[in-house]
Amino acid sequence: MTTMNRQILLASRPAGEPSADNFRLVETPVPALQEGQVLVRNHFLSLDPYMRGRMNDSKSYAQPQPLDAVMIGGTVGEVVESRNAHFQAGDKVVGMGGWQEYLVVDANQRGVLQKVDTTHIPLSAYLGAVGMPGVTGWYGLVKIINPKAGETVVVSAASGAVGGAVGQLAKVRGCRVVGLAGGPEKCAQVVGELGFDACIDYKAHPDLKSLSRALKEACPDGIDGYFENVGGMILDAVMLRSNAFSRIAFCGMIAGYNGQPIPMANPSLILVNRMKLEGFIVSEHMEVWPEALKELGTLVATGKFKYRETVAQGLAAAPEAFLGLLKGRNFGKQLVKLV
Amino acid sequence: MTTMNRQILLASRPAGEPSADNFRLVETPVPALQEGQVLVRNHFLSLDPYMRGRMNDSKSYAQPQPLDAVMIGGTVGEVVESRNAHFQAGDKVVGMGGWQEYLVVDANQRGVLQKVDTTHIPLSAYLGAVGMPGVTGWYGLVKIINPKAGETVVVSAASGAVGGAVGQLAKVRGCRVVGLAGGPEKCAQVVGELGFDACIDYKAHPDLKSLSRALKEACPDGIDGYFENVGGMILDAVMLRSNAFSRIAFCGMIAGYNGQPIPMANPSLILVNRMKLEGFIVSEHMEVWPEALKELGTLVATGKFKYRETVAQGLAAAPEAFLGLLKGRNFGKQLVKLV
Repeated sequence: MTTMNRQILLASRPAGEPSADNFRLVETPVPALQEGQVLVRNHFLSLDPYMRGRMNDSKSYAQPQPLDAVMIGGTVGEVVESRNAHFQAGDKVVGMGGWQEYLVVDANQRGVLQKVDTTHIPLSAYLGAVGMPGVTGWYGLVKIINPKAGETVVVSAASGAVGGAVGQLAKVRGCRVVGLAGGPEKCAQVVGELGFDACIDYKAHPDLKSLSRALKEACPDGIDGYFENVGGMILDAVMLRSNAFSRIAFCGMIAGYNGQPIPMANPSLILVNRMKLEGFIVSEHMEVWPEALKELGTLVATGKFKYRETVAQGLAAAPEAFLGLLKGRNFGKQLVKLV
Repeated sequence: MTTMNRQILLASRPAGEPSADNFRLVETPVPALQEGQVLVRNHFLSLDPYMRGRMNDSKSYAQPQPLDAVMIGGTVGEVVESRNAHFQAGDKVVGMGGWQEYLVVDANQRGVLQKVDTTHIPLSAYLGAVGMPGVTGWYGLVKIINPKAGETVVVSAASGAVGGAVGQLAKVRGCRVVGLAGGPEKCAQVVGELGFDACIDYKAHPDLKSLSRALKEACPDGIDGYFENVGGMILDAVMLRSNAFSRIAFCGMIAGYNGQPIPMANPSLILVNRMKLEGFIVSEHMEVWPEALKELGTLVATGKFKYRETVAQGLAAAPEAFLGLLKGRNFGKQLVKLV
């Protein structure tokens, strides 16, 4: 009996804000395995803001997602069949399985599929705290912001998977940590659950002056490090409160994915405050992953690291869940549960 | 007989563009020397863009220049009288003598006055190529841009003292070097005398599209490093042509000194191209001065480093020369000759 694989393809590129019409659900038979290949049943699919960028056909750090191809994305799952000596049925694995229920992959290619241990760490965490989002937060904080104890670190999208990692890793390093999130509920969680010192509801501050005042209150000693997930007015407000020799790690600029211009109001502050601004893509720094995953894995396994997941049910729910993520409707890591 | 000292004070702070009215020439007697003090006759006064920033009463990296006090500035001169064991009449010295003919200084304070050797290096060069502007160029190029041979480095204000140093030091390191300067005459000098590979007359490119096209032509392999002396549209155009992992050293933003807003059009390029942007003030990095001055001094003494000077005659000419500098009327290092 042939196993059928349901997949979500990119059907068209969005002009501005994406919609469900940009995606198409198809069903195709799973092919027979070739020597070296592994068949994985995906248990969880990761939804991440970077996917919005891939939907465009414009120059960016990565190739655009091809039309009529399976949407890319990280997955965790279980090996159901293997013609590769390094994997056997029952192995729990993490990989880039994409928006589909089954993945057939040549597991001899280095790094495409990795076995993970779920004794102390839940499988889904390998897509969040102990996966790409966690390492993303780790890299920006440790390698770019590189904060000293006592310094103030600000994080936008603080309730997200990356932001939550940045803040908690900064707390471990003795920093004052201030988040920015959308809405009082998220802010309460950022402080109450994740242990940030303060969290600013940016939706309550519609203009630069108001947001800048809120940052001044939350950061009485100024800002030494900023982890940028958003761009736009929040960046401008943070720069106005930045200390001499402060650092900004540019991880995401959600505000710009739909093509609106998002200028930086006052770049001369880079000079005035002798700031360092640096953009990065975590997949280009594979050399730090072992160190980062070791710290993150230990924190999660020992219960010292908190995270939330928002879980959509079934592959067909992926497009709506993704659109919700772009609007900030998720709490913590956005996943799609497939099994 | 008492020696009279002519001085130029900051009489008022400019609202927008400065004018000669902001300065006042006064004459005061030179006081008798105290123990440890040295009397220096200033031979050359250095005029530099940073002085414009000091004239404002706003937050910046340095204290504002006080009103009714002698304008700050670097000077070279000759000791005419000394009550300090380390200096004697006839010594050639460099210091921060300010806009005045004579300087009385407690020479025991570390670093306020340094003897210089004029056997192979002209006295005035210690205000330019072998002084603060040269080290400024060296720091931004070597410590921030850190170019590899074969990379393309772009420099704005290329015919100025700092820009000329950046470009020639980058050529020594095997880079393709492209300058930006105002007018065909300056561009011809930047290529013909200073040895840049190309120079773009930014005045011939009044809009972003045109300037970006000129940069594309001059930098067929993109831009790996940019030394920012100007800000505004040039920065935007350079960012559009920047390669992955490119670096920008922020040294000056002349365009903003008079208070106009100069936004950066597309900061998301920092992320897309994984760029590093860093502002610096050379006086905060005294640890590099010996290494930088050694390289610059050797290049000048052996005739391998070219520079031009624009020399105004007499202290009274300093304000007009300074206003001309801000408008880019100088060629190379702007000096005022006092003796």
